[in-house]
Amino acid sequence: MSSVAVIAVKRSAASAFGKTTSRSGPKWLPRSMGVRFMSHGTSVPAGQWRRTGAFLVAGAAAFAGAAVGIGRFQRAEMASRVWPNELAEVDIAETCKSFMSPPVSDVDVLQQRRGEMSTRMEMLIMQTQVDFCRALEEVDGGTFKVDRWKRTEGGGGISCVMQDGKVFEKAGVNVSVVSGNLTEEAAKQMRSRGKVLKGRDGKLPFIAMGVSSVIHPKNPHIPTVHFNYRYFEIEEADGSKQWWFGGGTDLTPVYVDQEDAALFHGVLKQACAKHHPRYYPDFKKWCDKYFYVRHRGETRGIGGIFFDDLDSPDQEEVFNFVKSCAQTVVPCYLPIVRKHLNDPFTPEEKDWQQVRRGRYVEFNLVYDRGVKFGLATPGSRIESILMSLPLTARWEYMHEPKKGSKEAAMLEVLRNPREWI
Amino acid sequence: MSSVAVIAVKRSAASAFGKTTSRSGPKWLPRSMGVRFMSHGTSVPAGQWRRTGAFLVAGAAAFAGAAVGIGRFQRAEMASRVWPNELAEVDIAETCKSFMSPPVSDVDVLQQRRGEMSTRMEMLIMQTQVDFCRALEEVDGGTFKVDRWKRTEGGGGISCVMQDGKVFEKAGVNVSVVSGNLTEEAAKQMRSRGKVLKGRDGKLPFIAMGVSSVIHPKNPHIPTVHFNYRYFEIEEADGSKQWWFGGGTDLTPVYVDQEDAALFHGVLKQACAKHHPRYYPDFKKWCDKYFYVRHRGETRGIGGIFFDDLDSPDQEEVFNFVKSCAQTVVPCYLPIVRKHLNDPFTPEEKDWQQVRRGRYVEFNLVYDRGVKFGLATPGSRIESILMSLPLTARWEYMHEPKKGSKEAAMLEVLRNPREWI
Repeated sequence: MSSVAVIAVKRSAASAFGKTTSRSGPKWLPRSMGVRFMSHGTSVPAGQWRRTGAFLVAGAAAFAGAAVGIGRFQRAEMASRVWPNELAEVDIAETCKSFMSPPVSDVDVLQQRRGEMSTRMEMLIMQTQVDFCRALEEVDGGTFKVDRWKRTEGGGGISCVMQDGKVFEKAGVNVSVVSGNLTEEAAKQMRSRGKVLKGRDGKLPFIAMGVSSVIHPKNPHIPTVHFNYRYFEIEEADGSKQWWFGGGTDLTPVYVDQEDAALFHGVLKQACAKHHPRYYPDFKKWCDKYFYVRHRGETRGIGGIFFDDLDSPDQEEVFNFVKSCAQTVVPCYLPIVRKHLNDPFTPEEKDWQQVRRGRYVEFNLVYDRGVKFGLATPGSRIESILMSLPLTARWEYMHEPKKGSKEAAMLEVLRNPREWI
Repeated sequence: MSSVAVIAVKRSAASAFGKTTSRSGPKWLPRSMGVRFMSHGTSVPAGQWRRTGAFLVAGAAAFAGAAVGIGRFQRAEMASRVWPNELAEVDIAETCKSFMSPPVSDVDVLQQRRGEMSTRMEMLIMQTQVDFCRALEEVDGGTFKVDRWKRTEGGGGISCVMQDGKVFEKAGVNVSVVSGNLTEEAAKQMRSRGKVLKGRDGKLPFIAMGVSSVIHPKNPHIPTVHFNYRYFEIEEADGSKQWWFGGGTDLTPVYVDQEDAALFHGVLKQACAKHHPRYYPDFKKWCDKYFYVRHRGETRGIGGIFFDDLDSPDQEEVFNFVKSCAQTVVPCYLPIVRKHLNDPFTPEEKDWQQVRRGRYVEFNLVYDRGVKFGLATPGSRIESILMSLPLTARWEYMHEPKKGSKEAAMLEVLRNPREWI
């Protein structure tokens, strides 16, 4: 099939994923809200939420992990819902031209396998990367440096980094699509619920992909944001596939701003609400538990949502939830960036930002399971894993904000996570 | 016994530990070399060195750890050597007055137990702290902030920190003396060779003490130094005591300076040579293996010495070796500080220092077993554990020095550890 011949008749994946070039609604209303999501139907699934015990476990799972129970839909109620494959009528080759770089997988392969989840997820993460990068470039005026890298053991990635920009001290948006064989033990480790998987001769072919980003702005009144959306697929000896999704978006401000926090959490809550009424409250709590700097007794920031090992009610529904989340990364962050773009700040405020950056480094190097997994995995691209670290950070001995100060107010929130909406 | 009455007739521990107020020899000759060490006899013990296998294991043990074989003296040959107890004629109460703070243990208790190793080691680490702090204050012009802290579970510490001085960006010298009960499992973990210890009702009374320091100067031509000397004692159900020492001193320059490296390693080698000809070469290799940032493929610095779980040929000999090492902390570092005190530097050199500081943070948070043990231990004083982090650090995406540059020369050394003397 020639990709040229079909340009005119096929929609691009960008529009399939809900990208619109003109904004609808007021500035504070995220652009894809109420447009893209409404088109998928506004009736929230009435599926009951069932807990299997230790759902909200401290330090629960990014990539690899200990057994973590997880709240689940009752499959029967949900499985009947049908979503369209957003790539059905899309010209994949043409769409790929708009990405930051050609995708990791060969375009021909993606076209041939357009019905497969791995293709749909790879297109989604590539689209998320370019949407977010372009939005950041627009506000900063700088451009992202794009690095393609290959993993000897299979797959590779595309790292986009903007460093020392006008607005952003360091902005990284990374896509990776890696594949190969896992041992049964490693597969068990990867799955946060520790499910035993049977491989052929002990080996399990797997594919893991995701988009992740950390943005550290210069101005201390613009918060740091992080998001990560990922998909895993493991093939067992009998040919059956195990799959699950994980992800989340969380905000790390230097100072408390109730309006920013409400916008950020509000956008995430709306995205969640399209899929299940318990998603936001439960994934919000999970986020606070996961991004916790235990030795400081502080959360890393004001949270957002975090989930892992999500595989029900069915693949279609979970993917569509992940898609809804991925589509919020621009609308939940860019309005906050624009609002504070020209906020003046003092050297003291900058210092406090640098101290908070130090705590960010502590979380990422000591607790973050994705980082730990990456650093311990042979063939990992260290620069992509550690692009989440800020350009600069500071550790002051016995730093303690003055009582009643704005800095003390921030610490209070980090020590006692709050409901923002 | 009144401490006042005996001032005139007793030597102070400072002189017992070899402190002299006037310098002997040229500026580059460490002051206690050839004075203190000679007084202990210059004949190097002819004990044979026996290896028990995996002596030089990557990542081997600071506090807690996996099984690590260790080279050992043949006890029979060495045990006959007699060292004097340096506290025998010392007025402990008077000596304690010269410390940065009264010791962690009660002075009366120290006086009553002057013959015990725990007392001798506590006096040594207190003396090392004050000697090093005073030497740094003299060169900087600033003063150390002294914090005494208590550990609810038993013991406490004295943290001395100088921040944002004239010469030093951040200088920390910490003493801790902690005690309590360990579970058998925890005791096994603490001992790097994983020896099984029998407790009474599963509990093992222990005492752990040490002096540790990290000094980060402002000028990129003055290297960062780190040292740590520590002692552990665990009492088994039958009343027998298990004990061992650990320690080391290592240097982390920003630029290669052959002369500095030779001085630093030379002083350590001389101290080692008083005790065993294999100590320096073996503990130098152990140091390079331990201070290794695996995900970067770089050592943290240019090494020095590192040893752990040392318990032979006998307690007296090992203590005297540790004492010799502790007495080098001033002479192996201060001459280097003085030499570069007024070196000019460019913003580019400062940037490279900041990038190296980032790697220092990576080692300390990802690999350092003392830090990991501390962060995971309830009741730890986090500020004392993390005082080893620099005041400021930097992470540049894909930083790579230019070929042939001074920065590239430094990296080359970190990637391929060198013999300096």
